[in-house]
Amino acid sequence: MNNDHKFKRGLMTGRFQPFHNGHLALARQALSECDELVIVIGSAQFNFIEKDPFTAGERVMMIHAALAEAGVDLSKCYIIPVANDENNARWLAHLRSQVPSFDALYSGNDFVDHLARSQDPSLAVKRPKFTKRQEYNGSNIRSLIVAGKVKGWKHLVPPAVAKAIEDVGGVERIKVLARSDSNPARW
Amino acid sequence: MNNDHKFKRGLMTGRFQPFHNGHLALARQALSECDELVIVIGSAQFNFIEKDPFTAGERVMMIHAALAEAGVDLSKCYIIPVANDENNARWLAHLRSQVPSFDALYSGNDFVDHLARSQDPSLAVKRPKFTKRQEYNGSNIRSLIVAGKVKGWKHLVPPAVAKAIEDVGGVERIKVLARSDSNPARW
Amino acid sequence: MNNDHKFKRGLMTGRFQPFHNGHLALARQALSECDELVIVIGSAQFNFIEKDPFTAGERVMMIHAALAEAGVDLSKCYIIPVANDENNARWLAHLRSQVPSFDALYSGNDFVDHLARSQDPSLAVKRPKFTKRQEYNGSNIRSLIVAGKVKGWKHLVPPAVAKAIEDVGGVERIKVLARSDSNPARW
Amino acid sequence: MNNDHKFKRGLMTGRFQPFHNGHLALARQALSECDELVIVIGSAQFNFIEKDPFTAGERVMMIHAALAEAGVDLSKCYIIPVANDENNARWLAHLRSQVPSFDALYSGNDFVDHLARSQDPSLAVKRPKFTKRQEYNGSNIRSLIVAGKVKGWKHLVPPAVAKAIEDVGGVERIKVLARSDSNPARW
Amino acid sequence: MNNDHKFKRGLMTGRFQPFHNGHLALARQALSECDELVIVIGSAQFNFIEKDPFTAGERVMMIHAALAEAGVDLSKCYIIPVANDENNARWLAHLRSQVPSFDALYSGNDFVDHLARSQDPSLAVKRPKFTKRQEYNGSNIRSLIVAGKVKGWKHLVPPAVAKAIEDVGGVERIKVLARSDSNPARW
Amino acid sequence: MNNDHKFKRGLMTGRFQPFHNGHLALARQALSECDELVIVIGSAQFNFIEKDPFTAGERVMMIHAALAEAGVDLSKCYIIPVANDENNARWLAHLRSQVPSFDALYSGNDFVDHLARSQDPSLAVKRPKFTKRQEYNGSNIRSLIVAGKVKGWKHLVPPAVAKAIEDVGGVERIKVLARSDSNPARW
Repeated sequence: MNNDHKFKRGLMTGRFQPFHNGHLALARQALSECDELVIVIGSAQFNFIEKDPFTAGERVMMIHAALAEAGVDLSKCYIIPVANDENNARWLAHLRSQVPSFDALYSGNDFVDHLARSQDPSLAVKRPKFTKRQEYNGSNIRSLIVAGKVKGWKHLVPPAVAKAIEDVGGVERIKVLARSDSNPARW
Repeated sequence: MNNDHKFKRGLMTGRFQPFHNGHLALARQALSECDELVIVIGSAQFNFIEKDPFTAGERVMMIHAALAEAGVDLSKCYIIPVANDENNARWLAHLRSQVPSFDALYSGNDFVDHLARSQDPSLAVKRPKFTKRQEYNGSNIRSLIVAGKVKGWKHLVPPAVAKAIEDVGGVERIKVLARSDSNPARW
Repeated sequence: MNNDHKFKRGLMTGRFQPFHNGHLALARQALSECDELVIVIGSAQFNFIEKDPFTAGERVMMIHAALAEAGVDLSKCYIIPVANDENNARWLAHLRSQVPSFDALYSGNDFVDHLARSQDPSLAVKRPKFTKRQEYNGSNIRSLIVAGKVKGWKHLVPPAVAKAIEDVGGVERIKVLARSDSNPARW
Repeated sequence: MNNDHKFKRGLMTGRFQPFHNGHLALARQALSECDELVIVIGSAQFNFIEKDPFTAGERVMMIHAALAEAGVDLSKCYIIPVANDENNARWLAHLRSQVPSFDALYSGNDFVDHLARSQDPSLAVKRPKFTKRQEYNGSNIRSLIVAGKVKGWKHLVPPAVAKAIEDVGGVERIKVLARSDSNPARW
Repeated sequence: MNNDHKFKRGLMTGRFQPFHNGHLALARQALSECDELVIVIGSAQFNFIEKDPFTAGERVMMIHAALAEAGVDLSKCYIIPVANDENNARWLAHLRSQVPSFDALYSGNDFVDHLARSQDPSLAVKRPKFTKRQEYNGSNIRSLIVAGKVKGWKHLVPPAVAKAIEDVGGVERIKVLARSDSNPARW
Repeated sequence: MNNDHKFKRGLMTGRFQPFHNGHLALARQALSECDELVIVIGSAQFNFIEKDPFTAGERVMMIHAALAEAGVDLSKCYIIPVANDENNARWLAHLRSQVPSFDALYSGNDFVDHLARSQDPSLAVKRPKFTKRQEYNGSNIRSLIVAGKVKGWKHLVPPAVAKAIEDVGGVERIKVLARSDSNPARW
């Protein structure tokens, strides 16, 4: 372990729909305190739905590209999609089965914090320093994309993510998914 | 292939809760352009819930009876229930594993259209000609049944469907399901 | 069979989030009419979500303790968690595969009543005599816990349940789950 | 109901890997005793494995074509894929949720017979008259295909099935699947 | 906690196909060392298959009856069916979500022992004192039932279990399941 | 794209129980022909079973460490666990939803080759040059570990993998899993 680092391996989790500058700031924070970082892409089984437009694979690609662009050392990073598990009481055990071992969890979410503490009181839970959550928020970014103003959302995500969204036709996709008939339940 | 037909086999998909005259019109349109037609009953695993009152089997029976009544040649039709798959990115591959091969998709739904085009750009997607979607709509028909006025809904579905609904006690069922305590989540 | 009893074995079902005095009254009613009672804990796979805060195991413990405290003979009771099944048409068959055979179903829920009658018309369905459902209702009790007034909810549940909720940190848990970021879908 | 018919609707079930002359004989027997026939394609979720080479959709197509070729009236037939359910005790309820109602089950399998009788003693269970099960047997036919002698297997299946197998590259597929590395568990 | 008891609550797990005298001896041993005992019925979702003939509900009934017959205080016992989880690394977390908390695990199985120690080194794992595993073994008992000699198996199970097996037609069922065509994969 | 490279992104898949020198050779081969490489860890949901002893997370760690040790540029690699999908006909679509897009598949397995060609004839499928499959084979390596001779297996895996296996207690684990009572089906 690097002597300047408090932890061997940190972990952060999110749906990353899409990965934005708030996420990138948290990754940087974690890498300043940990030797390595695991980034867990949650809800990996979902895609092409309104709140989960991108596939797990597209999200892996976005995050990888954004970290590379930001000069992060990718040999210290693990980017891993994990499907949801409906039984929250085994959340930590489920997560641990899918990722390398970790000794710090980075999360600004009270619920994740609560789950982690109730399932392993010895696990360090660290809060994000960067917290403009109103603005840097997947739901907000998707709404801005639907609203159709490029200036509205592009500054909120790393350039590599904006490019990846456009490369996969993500703007059009998010607009289609926002329409009322995009819910298979309504077919 | 019939020389008058553009396609070998068309496919239309829906939840058919219940199968109505708009669906029947689309089936006729498809059969005027295709040698054969596959009708996929989606959400096959659901039933006895507010927006999915009928079982897959009851829906098979309704559609079969409605087509027979309408004089459609059933030897050219395949009526196939398919359970939902949570991973939309494999929607077309999932569908194709459950039905005979098809070369045209009939759908008035932008989302289905988008999914199909993104997963196989070579697949023909055809729009319905009959489009009073406000009225010919499962949700609207179920609401009219709950409202309890026979004249309100019976003209929207083929007579064979109205009969099938009554044979299985569907009017009573839809009313029970519309009550606030019908959601198992609330028990 | 006890000569005073109409049924060999009754069954009642609920999510029991938490088990309250209305549930206890129904258990007593059933035991006055049946030799034995099966208590089915539904949605057994869910926990640590807003409407399902307690694990199946915690609910088993609450119910067991509440019955013991109330002087109920536990050798006549079966407390069994059952995970939900998405296909309602096989609800009764699913339930029967998980519990000892039963000849009476106790339920105040029209939907459960409808499911049971449609799947086995010979099964007796009995209504609860105690019916202050507005007050004795899991959703109401959880709201009172969030509101934070002990006097508001403790009289609605058996003392053993109140103690069990506190032993597992349930008050804090329910408050965390009620916050807007507790839904994994929003991570 | 046709006066000559004992039953309104019969049901036969199988994996149909592939549909062979024994199956066709059973379908004819059922249609001589019932107004209509439901043919359930079991293990609908499996394909491209050694004992389940064909997709549900390919099997629908084979059966449809074989019945048409044999002059069977398809307006009296329902061909429905059903995925397996791991809980056998709800087998009949699961099946009933996916198919039109039926009053006779055609099966030469003791286990199916036992399941049916234990779940609904009132359901008629009928035995096949045609019973060269040693030869008319999916496993035997697949082995003959692997052995590579056309004369070995073609007379065991309806011509339309032999054609369908060849149209989808089924001979090559069955051979690949028979090789030792075809089991994903061994990758 | 009883002063004579080392543990608050012990847990033993098995498929109990069927519950035999070895299991009963282990339950007695646990109750001599713990205030309470949880008996987990594994593979709860399986039944009517060769190695899992009885439903979870039938097994609950057998165990409950056997304990009552043996004079065990049922107010100290929890009999809980648990469906398998394919991800062994979360086995203990899965189990804990379904049962009351426990501080000792009773198991004669090296694998269970290994799983438990690797997932919670602080959990006490206790070995059975009674260990004629060759004879007191579900697989052996089912074989003896198939062989058809009552004297062969009845002395291996508590009388209440023998009676329960006969009440549900278990002897006939086990024989049917042992036949070669009882495997749905072979239909 | 590097001018020397034929493909933008290659993909190789395996269970990697454990990752051995044959896998490493294939990764090197792919990286000599592709700009980037995706390594898919199959059967991600399994662990602590005889043929799948290591968790997905442990396998991620092993592969990452082995590539780093071999001097591979990790910024060009994606190591992604993917759970099995029972429906092989949607295998490629399932895979594509979980990983970055790829234009070459590296596989020495006839079945994978067949699946890939049948689902996307335009995808390049490349064979491994290094092919001592008898020796460099997970099953063989696990057997050697059970046999207990360090010299037998260590030279077959990268040193970082041997170290990772020992760090997680893998030798002991594999031995326990090889014993006859390690199968939960036999509890």
